[in-house]
Amino acid sequence: MTFHPKNVLIMQSGGCTNVLNSSLSGIAAEAAGSRAFDRIYGASHGLDGLLDNRTVDLTDVPETTWKRVARSPGAALGSTRHKLTPEDVPIILDKLAALDIGYWFIVGGNDSAETGHMLTVEAAKAGYDLVEVNVPKTIDNDLVLTDHCPGYGSAARFVALAAMGAGNDAEAMGVASPITIQEVMGRDTGWLAAASALGRREERDAPHVICLPETPIYEDRFVSRVEDAYTRFGFAVAVVSENARSADGVLGGQSEPWFVDDFGHAYYDGPARYLASLVAKRLGVRVRYEKPGTIQRSFVAAASPRDVREAEMAGRAAVRAALDGHNDVIVTLERIAGTRYECTTGLAPLEAVGGKVRTMPAEFLDASSGEIQPAFLRYLRPLVGRLPRFARLT
Amino acid sequence: MTFHPKNVLIMQSGGCTNVLNSSLSGIAAEAAGSRAFDRIYGASHGLDGLLDNRTVDLTDVPETTWKRVARSPGAALGSTRHKLTPEDVPIILDKLAALDIGYWFIVGGNDSAETGHMLTVEAAKAGYDLVEVNVPKTIDNDLVLTDHCPGYGSAARFVALAAMGAGNDAEAMGVASPITIQEVMGRDTGWLAAASALGRREERDAPHVICLPETPIYEDRFVSRVEDAYTRFGFAVAVVSENARSADGVLGGQSEPWFVDDFGHAYYDGPARYLASLVAKRLGVRVRYEKPGTIQRSFVAAASPRDVREAEMAGRAAVRAALDGHNDVIVTLERIAGTRYECTTGLAPLEAVGGKVRTMPAEFLDASSGEIQPAFLRYLRPLVGRLPRFARLT
Repeated sequence: MTFHPKNVLIMQSGGCTNVLNSSLSGIAAEAAGSRAFDRIYGASHGLDGLLDNRTVDLTDVPETTWKRVARSPGAALGSTRHKLTPEDVPIILDKLAALDIGYWFIVGGNDSAETGHMLTVEAAKAGYDLVEVNVPKTIDNDLVLTDHCPGYGSAARFVALAAMGAGNDAEAMGVASPITIQEVMGRDTGWLAAASALGRREERDAPHVICLPETPIYEDRFVSRVEDAYTRFGFAVAVVSENARSADGVLGGQSEPWFVDDFGHAYYDGPARYLASLVAKRLGVRVRYEKPGTIQRSFVAAASPRDVREAEMAGRAAVRAALDGHNDVIVTLERIAGTRYECTTGLAPLEAVGGKVRTMPAEFLDASSGEIQPAFLRYLRPLVGRLPRFARLT
Repeated sequence: MTFHPKNVLIMQSGGCTNVLNSSLSGIAAEAAGSRAFDRIYGASHGLDGLLDNRTVDLTDVPETTWKRVARSPGAALGSTRHKLTPEDVPIILDKLAALDIGYWFIVGGNDSAETGHMLTVEAAKAGYDLVEVNVPKTIDNDLVLTDHCPGYGSAARFVALAAMGAGNDAEAMGVASPITIQEVMGRDTGWLAAASALGRREERDAPHVICLPETPIYEDRFVSRVEDAYTRFGFAVAVVSENARSADGVLGGQSEPWFVDDFGHAYYDGPARYLASLVAKRLGVRVRYEKPGTIQRSFVAAASPRDVREAEMAGRAAVRAALDGHNDVIVTLERIAGTRYECTTGLAPLEAVGGKVRTMPAEFLDASSGEIQPAFLRYLRPLVGRLPRFARLT
């Protein structure tokens, strides 16, 4: 019987979330508590750091630091968008061997699942003993085989509160500034933008129009829906996903990048600015556009306490799964059927998750009309937590 | 001795804040509790509603509704940007007489102070008994003769947390997305954008560059300061006030409106988008720009509890001042000197506040360099409340 090299390597990868560091701290705490490992390393900026020998020894980080790290947005190890190439693999296996790594935990999304699976396969081919367990994270909530993703609940909470606030503001400002278009993140799917509907209790509540990548934007229809709300309520708020597109893939003002840098990188605006100009032109009223950008995934006062807890739970579950002999898997969150929300963790093969995108199912979104269904709001509510209840006097 | 007509009229005016409704509810509660008045009316959308006979009788609004209204962003009565004209005055006096209004409370900024003063003067000329007391509000914090303005502390809290979050995000993303430029509200002064510095504890903490309307932006200097932070720390965050300008008043891309609607209204972008393109072009890295817009003044999870309490206190103080025989005045907030923060209310003549703008004093801002001074952060901290303390592992 050979002895596993007993060091651990942790990585964070992809776009940040409000709770990415809760998962990191969960992994580190469970790994330390298990006493099954020698050193616990973190790779600085993921694969980039590993390839460049930028690793951090986390073994002796004091608990007071971990407590603060766990409640810091961003990624305390640094994140990366590095896509693993076949050329990287032998170098990475060398680096792992040099650090005596037997267990590797990646907190990441579907790109990281591909990375993790590829590494497990290649390590096995090379005869290198490696246990790989991923921890899910993404504000996009688009991983398959999990009920939801750590990071989503907090970003959804930001988006819901932002729409509620902007709605009250536009309604109060009336003719002076009655229409606001907010642009929300989301790579391929509308999970996050759809969360803007969660604070709606009455028909006149914002947002009145929500545009998701799943349903094309028809400009005339968009304007007439905004106009309809404005006519009925005296104000209107639209929430558009940053990747919402028209039927031919390009919104009017978006065929040209707004800027190309000297290195040839093209910058495209999201749809909000263009749609704001369109509505202002057609209706002749002031239209604002708002882009909270990374604030929506890093605003600590919008963190959902349940999301924070589940992110840590998922991190701890990854370590236990590794110690239980699982490999080449990702932790999943499983909702237990019942009247009260309960959630536990499960496991799915990395191969089944890598590169896949979970779009909103038909019971959550009628993609032909773009209408969000009540089942989606029931699904979402426990992830976001209680929202304030605003009141009107008029 | 004549009897005052004993009805009360309340108005909200100008841009919304997170606590405008706390002041409203404070006025209504104090007025109801005093039993000195008959009916309590609110004008819907301020002068607009009064001129159009859109008033709401607030006398019998239940306390449960008031509790929710007090914690709703926006302006529950509706706000207005209507600037009082001499032609409005006789119509308004007629409307006041029709409603038997003897006491008028406006929650507003320096425009509202002008309105209030003009009305008091004109009412006196016309022999109409009117007591007018204003309650200050503005996220811009630019009213003279008050230590600070209700609404500012909460918006400042949003801005500080947004810069902290965006900083952690950009630092974590590293080469993939290392630079972010955030655009913050503020009409003529940098009080709000300067608040982005409050979360900074170390040199590498965001924001690294802050641009206020008080200090011109020199493009080369801006780029080199961002580059300097990027070179030293691997990321950079700049916060720019929406009205920050270059020395000749116009930033490169801003000489043309981005859009003119069919009614001839010109739309100018704030500086963030232009500066983002400038930095991306010069440094050849991805640069984000973020515009939280009305979210920064309506995001209820960013409200400063002290700001909420003081906004209500200012509303109540206005009613007591009116009952004590004061007229043509605005409530002020006065900081009591001492080691612990304490605040009480005072009064200032409307005439002394109307139309005036309080820029940041030299002990808070070195306008020539644009450097925010430690005295400003000491002034600001109690208004914003405790900020989280983030931690790094690397």
